[in-house]
Amino acid sequence: MSGGTVGQNGAGRRHRVVIVGGGFGGLYAARAFRGAEVDVTLVDRRNFHLFQPLLYQVATGALAPGEIAQPLRAVFRKQRNVRVVLGEVREVDLVGGRVRLARGAGQDEDLALPYDSLIVAAGARYSYFGHDEWQRQAPPLKTIEDALELRRRILLAFEAAEAEPDASLRAPWLTFVIVGAGPTGVEMAGQIAEIARDTMRHDFRAFDPAETRVLLVEAADHPLPGFPPKLQAMAAKQLTELGVSVLTGRTVVDLDEASVAVRLADGHEERIAARTAMWAAGVAAAPLAGILAAAAGAERDRGGRIRVLPDLTLPGHPEVFAIGDMAALEDPETGSQLPGVAPVAMQQGGFAASVVRARLGGGAIPTAFRYHDKGSLATVGRARAVAQIGGLRVGGAVAWLIWLVVHLAYLIGFQNRLLVMVRWIFSYLTRGRGARLITGDWTAEDEAWKASAPSASGDRLGEG
Amino acid sequence: MSGGTVGQNGAGRRHRVVIVGGGFGGLYAARAFRGAEVDVTLVDRRNFHLFQPLLYQVATGALAPGEIAQPLRAVFRKQRNVRVVLGEVREVDLVGGRVRLARGAGQDEDLALPYDSLIVAAGARYSYFGHDEWQRQAPPLKTIEDALELRRRILLAFEAAEAEPDASLRAPWLTFVIVGAGPTGVEMAGQIAEIARDTMRHDFRAFDPAETRVLLVEAADHPLPGFPPKLQAMAAKQLTELGVSVLTGRTVVDLDEASVAVRLADGHEERIAARTAMWAAGVAAAPLAGILAAAAGAERDRGGRIRVLPDLTLPGHPEVFAIGDMAALEDPETGSQLPGVAPVAMQQGGFAASVVRARLGGGAIPTAFRYHDKGSLATVGRARAVAQIGGLRVGGAVAWLIWLVVHLAYLIGFQNRLLVMVRWIFSYLTRGRGARLITGDWTAEDEAWKASAPSASGDRLGEG
Repeated sequence: MSGGTVGQNGAGRRHRVVIVGGGFGGLYAARAFRGAEVDVTLVDRRNFHLFQPLLYQVATGALAPGEIAQPLRAVFRKQRNVRVVLGEVREVDLVGGRVRLARGAGQDEDLALPYDSLIVAAGARYSYFGHDEWQRQAPPLKTIEDALELRRRILLAFEAAEAEPDASLRAPWLTFVIVGAGPTGVEMAGQIAEIARDTMRHDFRAFDPAETRVLLVEAADHPLPGFPPKLQAMAAKQLTELGVSVLTGRTVVDLDEASVAVRLADGHEERIAARTAMWAAGVAAAPLAGILAAAAGAERDRGGRIRVLPDLTLPGHPEVFAIGDMAALEDPETGSQLPGVAPVAMQQGGFAASVVRARLGGGAIPTAFRYHDKGSLATVGRARAVAQIGGLRVGGAVAWLIWLVVHLAYLIGFQNRLLVMVRWIFSYLTRGRGARLITGDWTAEDEAWKASAPSASGDRLGEG
Repeated sequence: MSGGTVGQNGAGRRHRVVIVGGGFGGLYAARAFRGAEVDVTLVDRRNFHLFQPLLYQVATGALAPGEIAQPLRAVFRKQRNVRVVLGEVREVDLVGGRVRLARGAGQDEDLALPYDSLIVAAGARYSYFGHDEWQRQAPPLKTIEDALELRRRILLAFEAAEAEPDASLRAPWLTFVIVGAGPTGVEMAGQIAEIARDTMRHDFRAFDPAETRVLLVEAADHPLPGFPPKLQAMAAKQLTELGVSVLTGRTVVDLDEASVAVRLADGHEERIAARTAMWAAGVAAAPLAGILAAAAGAERDRGGRIRVLPDLTLPGHPEVFAIGDMAALEDPETGSQLPGVAPVAMQQGGFAASVVRARLGGGAIPTAFRYHDKGSLATVGRARAVAQIGGLRVGGAVAWLIWLVVHLAYLIGFQNRLLVMVRWIFSYLTRGRGARLITGDWTAEDEAWKASAPSASGDRLGEG
């Protein structure tokens, strides 16, 4: 340990860093403190880091939850300067320099965590544009629980179709509407189409899964808004090949348990009879962004993200960083907002840590975050994807292989990489899926999956 | 198709077999109809077959749910004479020859399934000996949901310990009580001890996981009641080596959220301060056993199991079979009741199918089921197990290898076998666990995991 005072303040204790959120931003920030003479406390509501780019594969039964999540304690087992605390930040005291956590697990008291540097990376959630009541019928895909709920609904819809002798009543069970054609929406649509076409082909006796309709509704004029036009066209073509109907230029105006109503630009409305819908449109910063911005007097953009300075700190609070999907910052080169994607969060996490380390250890303090855009990737289905890497724009099997390698490389945990690879090889060869369980309480009378609140489960045991 | 009328009744339609339950009994019965000129309908509340002998590995984070469960539709994809129906049997009409199902998934009407032969294999549940209120504090391990709930409680207990600065308040969070030292109780106790000793060794900063106490409470005088005495002694020794306290000759008399009270044979009572308990004692037949016995006027034993004839049929109803954990039958050789284990159910499933096939196809109709006992197996921990195969009685690493091979061999689905093998190799080498997620709604305020009913989850999204 060279330099006994490096990282220590006047009182002789080490510099305290609190990181809120164990997503890509928080995880990479904590990792970037490896070897530093600081005490890092990483706070998350959950005990694991979730690899969100593969969450849609859990929702469609291709992967199991544990394969795309890694316990935070396991990630930082050997990095002894990181302490993991489960809890939810409810208050930020910028004057006193501490955050207040509410905790579960039978702990009655709140916990106050003092910090010298604070890095907030609490991420984003889906926005229903003022129609939160739609969430019940069209759930989002943001958490493991969301993914299992969607998996459950998709699989139960096929079960309901098998049990429905009347073809006109069966059709809505075989119609799936995905709202929003960003990468998640495109991936979900492709996967559901493949489930119907390949995985389930021989599973039912009363109907042909090929009757399934997958509708991808998008307000913009192309799928994958924000991607280069050439990739948009490639994705649209690949989706169509898979049997997905891409309905662009349409906004959702109403949703109920049996249908989705959409409006076209000319004001014309259509109502689609569908029993299963999911939401992959609009994003808003996590509620903590509001708490933090109010405490600091910082501005927020339309999506609720905090407008940060070029070094990712809050105006007037150089010790407080906001990064990832919670932060709004323009790319100085392009003049456009940095997108809410994992690479931005990861790079910002590393940048914030480097600023803190430079302040403590001497050397030049970085003044402005620069995003190194390594490209865009989205997968549509088996051997179907689109990729842009530098000047290279490709689709089909080549893009898909790039996608595979990149996602395996960034997946945390070596065991997970191996398991996911085994699953993918199997899925590719057999067109099967390994994780097609309908879990959660299922009893005929309660129909918990339709209700907003899970049913009381006094007796989970039973036959079967 | 030799013999056009084989398996057909007078009306020209094929013989209809209804099988209730997709556990070991029902699954092996349905498989044994492969190639037969019958129409089999397999009814289960769940869409998957669960490999219960490995459920404790899900509860302790070693395996993911999908790895020990296989969708029934996938199992019978190629056996075209089997139709899978999701539903719960509520009524058996022995006169009319049909069962009535209640169903979920938005299906409003009940479904009546007519049968010519009925095979009921709805399994068993844990019995709380009249204290059902204990289930909240000491959940059983019977379903995937039970396993995830136990996993959640075990992991959250360690989290609570990490957050508790007072050592005297921390100790109850690090005390785990398992009630019942049958194979499941022994396996759970061994696994929790290993988690504390190996897996979590470097994960916490505020306490040493080696402080963990695992108490295995058993009313009989030895662990593994029903096993040969030599194996009982071996298991007791192995458990002690792992740091498990085996408390035999004790029955549970009270349970609350912070303690478990046990009574010794001499009437003396002890109260153990423990925040986490689980139930692996006493078994009772599924409720359907009562419905069926009442309809047939059949007797039931103390565990609620139906007393069946030697050919597994119900008295006066040769077309109705009860098999597996629901059926009570004496072994004609030993005079003792057949145990409620997977091999009995599997062999009974095959036997019931052979009786139906023989009746339809001519040939000798088997008159009495004979159980071929291939031995007993229980695992205690890493490289620790006990096995009896014929005259062979072994413990330690050899027994453990036998256990591994047998369980992998019977696990349904080739992909699952491979994934489980990869996981086990990893666990063996690293002493790690791949599936240590705390899932389910977790928010500080609701403490859903302590309440009997899951909380309303209007907003599952949030930071982290």
